[in-house]
Amino acid sequence: MRLSSFSDYSLRVLMYLGVHGGRLATAGEIAAAYGISVNHLTKVVNLLGRLGYVETVRGKGGGIRLGRGAAGIRLGEVIRQTENDFALVECFATGGQCQIHAVCRLPPILDEALAAMFTVLDRYTLADLLQGSGELGQMLPQPEAGQPA
Amino acid sequence: MRLSSFSDYSLRVLMYLGVHGGRLATAGEIAAAYGISVNHLTKVVNLLGRLGYVETVRGKGGGIRLGRGAAGIRLGEVIRQTENDFALVECFATGGQCQIHAVCRLPPILDEALAAMFTVLDRYTLADLLQGSGELGQMLPQPEAGQPA
Repeated sequence: MRLSSFSDYSLRVLMYLGVHGGRLATAGEIAAAYGISVNHLTKVVNLLGRLGYVETVRGKGGGIRLGRGAAGIRLGEVIRQTENDFALVECFATGGQCQIHAVCRLPPILDEALAAMFTVLDRYTLADLLQGSGELGQMLPQPEAGQPA
Repeated sequence: MRLSSFSDYSLRVLMYLGVHGGRLATAGEIAAAYGISVNHLTKVVNLLGRLGYVETVRGKGGGIRLGRGAAGIRLGEVIRQTENDFALVECFATGGQCQIHAVCRLPPILDEALAAMFTVLDRYTLADLLQGSGELGQMLPQPEAGQPA
């Protein structure tokens, strides 16, 4: 049971932008900081932009920054929106073939368990991930001029 | 985010055996009832046997039945034991490469969210899945003599 890399990378992008305050960053520098594929990260950034978590400034010297204050970005909300599949078992998904689907008592129990998980995740915001973010900032330094952007 | 088919099938096997009371069933008939691979199901049954959820009677006319009362089989416990990976994000897994692992504040939050999920799952047992199991029994009838076993 794991989150998609899409959700994982979304949280990392938001942490990076949070640590860097309002400075405009690029998908390239974030991908380089985490050592992950810039193509995949660009898709993540695009979705985060459509969802309003990230704001894009176009043109020369442009880039991305948080679209909202960190305290207003709930982790549960981000994961709910970036995870594409909460079908914990086959019958939750369209086209599931389980024979006992019509009478099975498991789905509402799994729904309740997922809801409990999100109740916890919704108690935390990006601001909680950035608390005491000096160390995080050291791990994710601003790239020097001339580094890939 | 989904459970492994191993966990999914484990719950289905336990439901089948619960519905059929103490009657000895076979992996073949359970696989046929659900329309899933008998090879995969046999691995599931073997693990459930090692974990004590299922009891095997060997020899002619042998088969499997529940190894414990349904009310003593907690769903959270089954899923914890049959799911092979609770690495919600990369850093939970051995060999994870996330650069900010050492200072990231996300892992304890995800741990807390998983714990909340299992608190719910541990409130339910196989007996809850079998409540009013007449309908479930109709969907999972005893195979007639001569059917694959």
